[in-house]
Amino acid sequence: MTHGTDSTAMKATLLAYVERFNAGDAQGVAALYADDATVEDPVGAQPIAGKPAILAFYQHTTALGARLEVVAPPRGSHGDAAALTFAVHVSLEGRPARIDVTDIMTFGADGRIRSMRAHWAPDDVHFL
Amino acid sequence: MTHGTDSTAMKATLLAYVERFNAGDAQGVAALYADDATVEDPVGAQPIAGKPAILAFYQHTTALGARLEVVAPPRGSHGDAAALTFAVHVSLEGRPARIDVTDIMTFGADGRIRSMRAHWAPDDVHFL
Repeated sequence: MTHGTDSTAMKATLLAYVERFNAGDAQGVAALYADDATVEDPVGAQPIAGKPAILAFYQHTTALGARLEVVAPPRGSHGDAAALTFAVHVSLEGRPARIDVTDIMTFGADGRIRSMRAHWAPDDVHFL
Repeated sequence: MTHGTDSTAMKATLLAYVERFNAGDAQGVAALYADDATVEDPVGAQPIAGKPAILAFYQHTTALGARLEVVAPPRGSHGDAAALTFAVHVSLEGRPARIDVTDIMTFGADGRIRSMRAHWAPDDVHFL
């Protein structure tokens, strides 16, 4: 199947997301998003919207030297959503830390990400 | 904090959900839900709504002998949502199988689950 919301295609995009993020390729990550996509990170914060804001978000986060570690295979759905559970390894205030996160992404028919919602709470930030 | 959407409280409810499910306690699982809660399992299917339908759903799934294995610590959020990534071990058509799932639950101020959405696709069902 080539439909953008096919589970296999959604999962491949999630893994490309991780690969590009870990390569520091903010432009490549942003290219996975639809032009009018939204990012709510963390869930409960004001979402950002649109490619320029999303690119700036990834330029900022990749510049922190954060590295994503996938901790479970991505999950698809019978709809347009898929889930990625991972740990973010990053230095916060000069101390090594791990943030436990589950992202839910929704996809358009063209296979691009329409929305990302990052589930993590203050108590998901672990100083090591 | 005792607020129902506090991250620690949400995670404790998710772990109680797993414990009660694995004990075959469908009534106990249903008791974690608000009376007017919804369950969409899998995401993309028609949701079910209301305590009687939710109880029947868990009576059915626990009767299958399914067992839930948590594969990553639950994630909270800065809002009313939390995430649980797990594997379902179950016999399907007489064959042992594992279904990879990520549930997103939202919670009311009383700490009860208002909605559950289960992310799994046909290709998340693995015959062993």
